[in-house]
This record gives sequence, structure tokens and C-alpha cells, in this order.
Amino acid sequence: MFHFGHSIAKLAAATFLVAAPMLSAAADDLPSWNNTATKKNIVDFVNAVTTEGGPDYVAPDDRIATFDNDGTLWSEQPMYVQLAFALDRVKALAPQHPEWKDTEPFKSVIAGDLKGALASGEHGIAEIIGATHAGMTNEEFAKIVTDWMATATNPRTGKLYTQMVYQPMLELMDYLRENKFEVFIVSGGGIEFMRPWTEAVYGVPMQNVVGSSIKTEYEIVDGKPVIMRLPAVDFIDDKDGKPLGINSHIGKRPIAAFGNSDGDFQMLQWTTAGEGRRFGLIVHHDDAVREVAYDRHSAIGQLDKGLDEGPKLGWTIVSMKDDWKTIFPD
Amino acid sequence: MFHFGHSIAKLAAATFLVAAPMLSAAADDLPSWNNTATKKNIVDFVNAVTTEGGPDYVAPDDRIATFDNDGTLWSEQPMYVQLAFALDRVKALAPQHPEWKDTEPFKSVIAGDLKGALASGEHGIAEIIGATHAGMTNEEFAKIVTDWMATATNPRTGKLYTQMVYQPMLELMDYLRENKFEVFIVSGGGIEFMRPWTEAVYGVPMQNVVGSSIKTEYEIVDGKPVIMRLPAVDFIDDKDGKPLGINSHIGKRPIAAFGNSDGDFQMLQWTTAGEGRRFGLIVHHDDAVREVAYDRHSAIGQLDKGLDEGPKLGWTIVSMKDDWKTIFPD
Repeated sequence: MFHFGHSIAKLAAATFLVAAPMLSAAADDLPSWNNTATKKNIVDFVNAVTTEGGPDYVAPDDRIATFDNDGTLWSEQPMYVQLAFALDRVKALAPQHPEWKDTEPFKSVIAGDLKGALASGEHGIAEIIGATHAGMTNEEFAKIVTDWMATATNPRTGKLYTQMVYQPMLELMDYLRENKFEVFIVSGGGIEFMRPWTEAVYGVPMQNVVGSSIKTEYEIVDGKPVIMRLPAVDFIDDKDGKPLGINSHIGKRPIAAFGNSDGDFQMLQWTTAGEGRRFGLIVHHDDAVREVAYDRHSAIGQLDKGLDEGPKLGWTIVSMKDDWKTIFPD
Repeated sequence: MFHFGHSIAKLAAATFLVAAPMLSAAADDLPSWNNTATKKNIVDFVNAVTTEGGPDYVAPDDRIATFDNDGTLWSEQPMYVQLAFALDRVKALAPQHPEWKDTEPFKSVIAGDLKGALASGEHGIAEIIGATHAGMTNEEFAKIVTDWMATATNPRTGKLYTQMVYQPMLELMDYLRENKFEVFIVSGGGIEFMRPWTEAVYGVPMQNVVGSSIKTEYEIVDGKPVIMRLPAVDFIDDKDGKPLGINSHIGKRPIAAFGNSDGDFQMLQWTTAGEGRRFGLIVHHDDAVREVAYDRHSAIGQLDKGLDEGPKLGWTIVSMKDDWKTIFPD
């Protein structure tokens, strides 16, 4: 027969022995984060909303976390990856368009003169997007993106773009999912530009990707239905667009949101203005040695309002320099 | 020590003994479906795509199933539930709008003259939607829908609308989820009209609901961010819109789609034109005794092209009369 007192003692011993490893296991969920206040903020928040019976408990179904992509999950310097893709596509398609040699913005793109290309303004950008992102089916476009992403490299580091994701943020997404959060990407980038690779790179399935889109049309071509991509903007998932995109695709207000630029301001504002415990986090690019330092005056990923208002709103500001042990995966 | 020959014999016996109960357990997943060819088609499809190593195997991540709502999951007779909601809202709001007494289509709605109200055509419908679905935040609208749904009843049966869901379809959604399908609703109805109750009634969470939408705007009101509903159509999730809505919200082509009217034709066409094993199913309302019989000439839920083309495209046509043991939950 069981000796009751002994078994209680054993249970207590087991609890004690297990307690320390469990604590370090929790800390180990974020091994690339230094033990700073930032990491503590993250862990405290997750513990608070996952503690059943606690005052801040949130049921798993409502544990929605949204992440910006460019500059939050992967590097956006020296230029947005999708812009690099568009420029490469113009060059790849140039032989089929001899007229581009004399037409802006294509002429400048082909000559490698980005400044000249951008001088054509919004109209020029629209021309480039129309020529490179539309006029094919969504399945054809997914293949073009997949093929390009397999070989294209960042001009600064020579690494594949999918290798220039932030290791601490990968760990953070995993940590949230382990704690029964549902993780979404909410990016100003093209929804169909991200979907072909987000599952493999971030563990985020296609249906959890929210982004900007161009108009599409359902057509029957050679007896087969296809979804054709049209050269017209449908939705811009940036600034005010982010809460609207979240509302359209998810329907619930997130309890945690992660961004890096003022394009994410409204997403964090919407998230943290909700009732109950909330979490907003801004990645501040302040590490000129290991990545690129930029904020208030950057043309890409400008962070100005968020630096001033974020702390007042209780948001956590990540210093990449101080809070991150490593930046990129090995 | 184990006797090997004996253990093989035991295994064989166990397999044999277990085989019969397992089959009937599978059959029991759909107890409200009669044992007809329709039920066999469903079970055969699910077995085929879930059999690892089989020629038709589909990984769980790609087991996307989409369901229409009106007429497929719940009754759409004698009028779309959302139309009943809009008419009730006009009556509820009438005291605040004395001018409606002399203005169509409101005058007819208040007088209970649906025909007169609909005589004002698309412009009139837009007026009714604008007055009843816009001008409030999305959270206020969700509360209005929830409150209405808690008490409003079908004029034919006196039952709550959420009680007039089809029991066989509830079982079918559960059966698919048990087999690691992800179930989405893809409806011509308003996305925000469905989201407040789809989780409780169908087990479909808000983020898995695709529907028609009106435009929205992100605003700061009294220092708090809100999403305001505007009186302008954004997206119609019907006919051609269904594959486009699926592409926007899910990003993957479904392997199974379920509808009841020609508004679902393109969703089933898009689904079943994909490579590998696919499944399309149309609910045919042919039971005048237990529900309402309607198809080719009905103003609501017209099913004409689907009846002719569906069988040629390999779709399964459900006879509610013959294939369903029960229609509504007890």
C-alpha cells in the first residue's frame, strides 16, 4: 500500500526540483534576447494573460498577436525587399519590352538608376507595380515570387532575404504560439508577395497573412478558372489600413502587436486601446554595427511618432543593440 | 516472454474485431444523414484525402473546406435573415427618423409592405443598408446583431434563426474538423453580420468567416480609436466574388466546397478545378414538407445552372428529402 506522507514529500520534492528547470525553460524560449527589462515585459505579459484564474487571463481563442513584416521580422534596408523584387522583374522582363529603353521609369530601372526611377513619383511606382505584379494569375505570381526568393540576395550582405530575418522575433513568435496565441502577419507589403514563403520562414500559414493587395478578377481561360491579377490597387495595409485589415481578416482586436515604424502606429494604438491587459512593442533599429541604425529621418521604416508617443502609451521599445544577443539566425 | 505467433493471431483478431466498430463509428459521425450514395460520397472523399500514403492524400494544412451560409447552413426562407434584420432595424429606428414616414423605401418597410420597399430597387436596398448597417462602430454593430439574434424569430416557424440551422451540416463540419480540415464560411451575407455568432452556432471562429463588407474608416472619437462603418459597399462575396474572397482571406484553394445556390457556382468550380481529389456539394431544397422546396425559379437561393452543370462536374447533389434523416436540431 502507498505511504501517503511519503508520497506528499515526494511530490513536494518533485515540484521543487522541477520548478527551477521550468523557470529556466521559460527563459530559454527567448535565448536570443538579453535579460533586460524588454524581455521581462514580454514574459510578464505572456504569463499574465495565460494564468488561469488570474486578473489578466485571456482565453486562447482571443490570444491574437499581429506582427508587421518589413523591419519587424526581416530587414528592410537598404530597400524594401518587394521593391528589389520589382526592380529585378523589370530587368528580367526588359527583353520582351524594347519600348522600356526609352520610357521612364523603366529606362532608369534598367540602367540601375533607382533615384531616377523614383523621380517619376507615384505614377512611376504604379507603372512598375503594374508591369511586375499584374497581368498573370495568382498561381503564376506565386511561382515567380518563390523562384526569385530562392536566389535573390541582399545587396549589402549577400545573404538570401529569407536569411535576413530576426532570430529574436522568430523565437518570440514560437514562444507566443507555444502559449496558444494565434500569430498573424499584418504588413504593408503585398499579401501575395508574402504568402508563398511565410509558412516555411515564420511558421505563419497563408490564411494568417494580411497585406496590401491589387484588384483581382475571376476568369475562365482555356476552360479553366483562374484568378487574374489586375494593375489597380485594391487595399493599402499601412497606417490606418492596418486596423482595418485586421478587422477584415481577423475580426478580433489583437491583444498584442509588434511593429517597427510609424506605419505600425495605428495597429499598436488599436491593439493597446482595447480593454484588459494589452501589449505593444516597437523594434528600434539602433544597431549600426550588426544591422543598420535608422529612425526619425529614414525614407524607409521611418520611426518618429512611435518613439515619442509609444512609451507614453505603455509600449515596449526594443533596442536591437542592447536587447538582442543575436540579430540573424546562424 | 511474449509468444510471437500468438501475438500475431491476437493482433489479427483485434483488427477484425475492431474493424466493424470503427466503420460504424465513422458512419456515426453523420447520424442525421441517411445511408445513401450522398453520404458514401462524403465519407469516401474524407477517407481518400486523409489516408496517409494513399494516392489522394492531402496534408492537414491544405485541407481547406468552405461553406456557404444562407440556404447551406441555415434556412434562407421566407427571406434572407439579414434582410429580416434590416427591416426590423428600420422599424426600431423609425421613431428617430420621422421623415421616413413619407420617404421610400422606409415608408413601405414601416408599413410592413416588403414588396413596396423592394420596388425601390437597388437604390432602395442601398438606402436600407446604409440606414441599418452603417453609421456606428463595428463593436456597436456587433452588439446590435447579437441582441437581435437572441430574440428574433423566423416568421414561418416562430423559431430563433440560430435554431434553424441544418443538423446534417453541423455534423458534416464537425466530421471534417475531426479529420483535420480547417472549416471556413464563405457567404454572400455580411461578414460582420455573421461573426458575432458563428463560433457559438457553427464552431467557426471569426477569423474563418468570409463575407460581403461595407467600407470602414479608422477614427479617433473622444480620444479612443474606433472602426466606423460607412454607407458604401466594399466587397460583394457572391458568384465571382467567392473565389476572390477565398483568395483574399485564405490564400489557398479549398479542396472541398459546399453551397446551395448559383451564387456558389464559382466557389465550387474554383474548388473542384484544382489538381488532386476535390469535392463539391450542393444542397438541393426539395423537401416541401419538412422545409421549403425551391430551386430554378426562386427569387431567394436560385439553383438552376448548378442543377444542370453540377453533376457533369462531379459535384454531389444533396436531396434534403432523401438524404437527410432530420433537418433541424431537436
